Amino acid sequence: MSNFIHEDFMLSNGTAKELFHGSAEAMPIIDYHCHLVPQQIAENIQFRDITQLWLVDGHYGDHYKWRAMRGNGIPEEYITGDRQGSWATFEKWAETVPYTMRNPLYHWTHLELSRVFGIDKLLSPKTAREIYEECNAKLATEEFRGQALIRKFGVEVVCTTDDPADDLRWHKMILEHPFGTKVIPAWRPDKAMAIENPEAYKAYLEQLGEAAGMEIRSYRDLQDALARRHEFFASMGCKLSDHGLETFYAADYTESGIEAIFAKVLSGKAPDADELEQFRSAFLYDQAVMDAEAGWAQQFHIGAIRNNNSRMFRSIGPDTGYDAIHDVQCAAAGHKFFDRLTLAGKLAKTILYCLNPKDNEVLMTMAYTFNDGTVPGKMQFGSGWWFLDQEDGMRKQMNALSALGLFSRFVGMLTDSRSFISYPRHEYFRRILCDVIGNDVESGRLPASEMDRISQMVKDISYNNAKNYFNF
Amino acid sequence: MSNFIHEDFMLSNGTAKELFHGSAEAMPIIDYHCHLVPQQIAENIQFRDITQLWLVDGHYGDHYKWRAMRGNGIPEEYITGDRQGSWATFEKWAETVPYTMRNPLYHWTHLELSRVFGIDKLLSPKTAREIYEECNAKLATEEFRGQALIRKFGVEVVCTTDDPADDLRWHKMILEHPFGTKVIPAWRPDKAMAIENPEAYKAYLEQLGEAAGMEIRSYRDLQDALARRHEFFASMGCKLSDHGLETFYAADYTESGIEAIFAKVLSGKAPDADELEQFRSAFLYDQAVMDAEAGWAQQFHIGAIRNNNSRMFRSIGPDTGYDAIHDVQCAAAGHKFFDRLTLAGKLAKTILYCLNPKDNEVLMTMAYTFNDGTVPGKMQFGSGWWFLDQEDGMRKQMNALSALGLFSRFVGMLTDSRSFISYPRHEYFRRILCDVIGNDVESGRLPASEMDRISQMVKDISYNNAKNYFNF
Amino acid sequence: MSNFIHEDFMLSNGTAKELFHGSAEAMPIIDYHCHLVPQQIAENIQFRDITQLWLVDGHYGDHYKWRAMRGNGIPEEYITGDRQGSWATFEKWAETVPYTMRNPLYHWTHLELSRVFGIDKLLSPKTAREIYEECNAKLATEEFRGQALIRKFGVEVVCTTDDPADDLRWHKMILEHPFGTKVIPAWRPDKAMAIENPEAYKAYLEQLGEAAGMEIRSYRDLQDALARRHEFFASMGCKLSDHGLETFYAADYTESGIEAIFAKVLSGKAPDADELEQFRSAFLYDQAVMDAEAGWAQQFHIGAIRNNNSRMFRSIGPDTGYDAIHDVQCAAAGHKFFDRLTLAGKLAKTILYCLNPKDNEVLMTMAYTFNDGTVPGKMQFGSGWWFLDQEDGMRKQMNALSALGLFSRFVGMLTDSRSFISYPRHEYFRRILCDVIGNDVESGRLPASEMDRISQMVKDISYNNAKNYFNF
Repeated sequence: MSNFIHEDFMLSNGTAKELFHGSAEAMPIIDYHCHLVPQQIAENIQFRDITQLWLVDGHYGDHYKWRAMRGNGIPEEYITGDRQGSWATFEKWAETVPYTMRNPLYHWTHLELSRVFGIDKLLSPKTAREIYEECNAKLATEEFRGQALIRKFGVEVVCTTDDPADDLRWHKMILEHPFGTKVIPAWRPDKAMAIENPEAYKAYLEQLGEAAGMEIRSYRDLQDALARRHEFFASMGCKLSDHGLETFYAADYTESGIEAIFAKVLSGKAPDADELEQFRSAFLYDQAVMDAEAGWAQQFHIGAIRNNNSRMFRSIGPDTGYDAIHDVQCAAAGHKFFDRLTLAGKLAKTILYCLNPKDNEVLMTMAYTFNDGTVPGKMQFGSGWWFLDQEDGMRKQMNALSALGLFSRFVGMLTDSRSFISYPRHEYFRRILCDVIGNDVESGRLPASEMDRISQMVKDISYNNAKNYFNF
Repeated sequence: MSNFIHEDFMLSNGTAKELFHGSAEAMPIIDYHCHLVPQQIAENIQFRDITQLWLVDGHYGDHYKWRAMRGNGIPEEYITGDRQGSWATFEKWAETVPYTMRNPLYHWTHLELSRVFGIDKLLSPKTAREIYEECNAKLATEEFRGQALIRKFGVEVVCTTDDPADDLRWHKMILEHPFGTKVIPAWRPDKAMAIENPEAYKAYLEQLGEAAGMEIRSYRDLQDALARRHEFFASMGCKLSDHGLETFYAADYTESGIEAIFAKVLSGKAPDADELEQFRSAFLYDQAVMDAEAGWAQQFHIGAIRNNNSRMFRSIGPDTGYDAIHDVQCAAAGHKFFDRLTLAGKLAKTILYCLNPKDNEVLMTMAYTFNDGTVPGKMQFGSGWWFLDQEDGMRKQMNALSALGLFSRFVGMLTDSRSFISYPRHEYFRRILCDVIGNDVESGRLPASEMDRISQMVKDISYNNAKNYFNF
Repeated sequence: MSNFIHEDFMLSNGTAKELFHGSAEAMPIIDYHCHLVPQQIAENIQFRDITQLWLVDGHYGDHYKWRAMRGNGIPEEYITGDRQGSWATFEKWAETVPYTMRNPLYHWTHLELSRVFGIDKLLSPKTAREIYEECNAKLATEEFRGQALIRKFGVEVVCTTDDPADDLRWHKMILEHPFGTKVIPAWRPDKAMAIENPEAYKAYLEQLGEAAGMEIRSYRDLQDALARRHEFFASMGCKLSDHGLETFYAADYTESGIEAIFAKVLSGKAPDADELEQFRSAFLYDQAVMDAEAGWAQQFHIGAIRNNNSRMFRSIGPDTGYDAIHDVQCAAAGHKFFDRLTLAGKLAKTILYCLNPKDNEVLMTMAYTFNDGTVPGKMQFGSGWWFLDQEDGMRKQMNALSALGLFSRFVGMLTDSRSFISYPRHEYFRRILCDVIGNDVESGRLPASEMDRISQMVKDISYNNAKNYFNF
């Protein structure tokens, strides 16, 4: 182990060390929300090299690293353009790493080198070549194929993120060839709500209709088609949905009004702002009812502003590092949305995530306003998301959750990642968790006489709560 | 003293300990804003049991605890429903307590057990029965009746929260039978502004008119009636008003416009959004003028979103744990409101509280924009309120106030509570206060050579500032 | 050195001390944004007394101190009114200082006394007279004239803040009589955008037209006139613009629409809200293009709400302590604005500053969404501004920047001050910077083996990054 990522990394006191090594470290992982590509899991991907694994993989790649490289003055050619190349791109990343000090990338990079590859050197231009070669040599072996990488970290369950139109063929293949980790689909119907672009939407309805074995000519049809797919997803083990939203939507609407908007979109006309909000309000409500009736949990990720750099969007598409933190309001619509569901008796287990830390307290108190005593921790304020998935973001989320609710009932960490080697982020989370709680014990904020309960709380947040909550 | 709530609880360094024990601990309490029920004080309530005192008391109860219990999966029946019962409800609370670690309830619960009952055990299912019995036995004695509980904590003054239509008969009774603590009414005219529901409003005007000895047929009448009651409240010692608002209101309006809106409401029609904002703007302005002319201080509590769970609202009413943190803007209207008052020379002493911590810096700089040099600390940014009345919320409030104004002039803590035993929260506040300042001294941010001034600052924030500011 | 401002002031650990004394302390200063008055520099001002230097100087003065004095109950007469006087006003300030504990004024005051005057006593009523006399005696000497005060702190470059209509005569005079510090103008065209008051605007256009040697009859003329002045500013060394805005503006508009709005204003009619937003959107875009084409950097300061106390505004004008922190949204318009510039290939180097700490993460991710790899750290999230230019504000800015971008590329501190003796704020910033990084090293968040890189990062943020970024 290097001097940097040593066994007590991020643990500032004795209680924190005791909690981490004694209670958190060995717990399995339930990664209930991520973006791993099912095909890559099913085919047990063998990575060409560390550049594919870490930096660029076809149209995709690590947008965190891309943003850092652009900020460091690395020309786009090396990232997504003509001069992209296995060594060329890696070299530019290695050049950037020393400039990422204090950014989570500095910790993630060295955690991954250490935990995945057993490399304890710090990445920099000086060490770039040898690290590159050592990683590539290892990646050529069986133990570094996709499934082995997942197994290495004790991952019990992975939930991927899937479109309702997806045939889940890769999930089937995995079911037929199990490798020790459950891989379950999760329901992400964002495209089925995206009426703002009628042409793309109509094309999507074709796909969805085909998957559902029916034609979609009305909003009612849409819900029927989604219901069929929802049932199919359930039959494949799915117990969890997810929505990526700017904010909540809870406008007033009528059934006939929604049908009229749907018809307008089918006729090729874009909805106006009011229509869009009504449609989203109806769609999300109907989805939430579907989840409640199926006994699933639902997730809402709010607060991103996406595809802001349209020059780059046209050239390389979405999810390439041009998204940011939004600042819209969410309290009024959010409460109205969950109130409607509560009135109808259709409130599913729910996890709320925000991208703007100013919303932490709002989402947290919103969640706890709709707990109904049926399930411990039914309404959850989720772990620091995306830009907030770093020490400062995690601590703020943990503190807001603790001050305004029951930290002990927290379902904990998820990776939200497309990478096969981001599992050390669960370790990172647990180290911070233990440090937070350890500090409370050592400063007398929690009673040292209750170490049994405290140790149980650490185990619960690390693993048991998610296990009981989702019941995969 | 238990190992948990020991004498240096929350005090992390020597200076903090010295300040707390030497300067803060013994100061009397001025609880200038709370929700104690005057009748219960006047009648010197004897509590049936710890469940009544802590958890449920008729229609009311501790919404903090109720939210925690619901979040912990306790069925509503045990809280406000059919299975509610002295032991049954207490048992469910005891079951929940260990899950409140890191929530202020964990500290408050054990502070109250220790300070009120002298019980140093930690509450859990294992200790529930003996704690229940010990508390109940003590509550049956004279020293645990309402007035004795208040006296026990050295409370010099309590300001209750009263409607203008209230006849203050219980305050009179207390005046006639003093028990060592001044109990003063405070003016909370929220109902007199609540025109959004014409039927309820008209019923309220009946009450108010009766109290004022006049009929209320116009907005002008309303202000006259309120002026009479304001004078009556003043004659009963009142020096303080309070408004609970989503945000500030400062729309443009005319006298005749407001009369027209008032007439519309009297005719049974609900005002539209613009009318509502105009009416609130006029009402708050006129109230503020009244306070300025009477030499009172005025309080504004902004940023709650209330009664969000309409299913539960219909079943058990307001203030039952279904309120949350709002995210509306407040800067533009707030500045316009105080500017109007300043222009008219009618700005009373003012305390601003927010419920969303994102507003801390906004309210703090707003307050200091209207100081006019007539009273030290005339415009105050008030203590962490409601959801923010916990360590993290208090520290953020103290730090925003310090960085952007004069911490030394802060009027300090209030309970804002309906409970007879929430006075240990003043102790909690003072411990955090001393820890904050002690850290500054020990880290060299404040000069150790100035301990006299620093100790004075602690005494002032604990007691003297409120005494001088309100002059009850 | 006093016990208070000692050599390790604000440095809590060994690494912080080593970094500050070894890497940060001796670096020169580039003060790339301030409000020093060019005439006072050119004429090498000799201050009448410490009251002129610190508190009141004609119509201007230190609004931080004024706000504190008003909050402390000092009557306005002593600040800007009839009882203002050299000793009288100083005495009132000395009376206030002990009440500023925990406010940055307490640190700034004693840093300035120590660093500028070599006075290590704490200012209070007891020491006021002797400090007053010692300061005044020193201010009467040559070494305490304006230019010597700047030189004393190793300031290499100062950028003032200048109107496009300014003839820069004082900058010329300084160029002709160099004193060791480069004094460069910066472009602040706020008045050229201020069409909300047509009369004042038309008077300004007269001035600007005269400076540009042309008549301004259209928006096109306006841009031509500004382009001539922009070129002239460039010829005087200017490489930096600045805009003070409530938020960003990016409405849709047409050239002819803007001309129509401009004509309306010239005819004496005030624009409506939509017109105002369109005009600002066009103006800022055209200015940004001008900056990009000239190779300048542009600054945006957003989030102030100004002149809120109209009674005092009428009596003593703007910038007198009646501004505050606003709470408007900025994400949508900001992204749209920078997207337009990116699409057009006209994005200059850019620094974004906010006044509301809730916007830290929004501005930070906005900035990094438009980095294009052409310049390291091209898009910057700027240092804590105005009310946020204090320890808590700086730490939050540093942490948001670090967690979401490359701290190593940060261009660092500026004074934004009108005072000749605010340079110790660079020292203050560097102490906090070293404390932040030192803590990271000592807690293992940064590797102790990389002290060379870490020390380089400290030097870069203190000086080198600004030097390379602006290339004055």
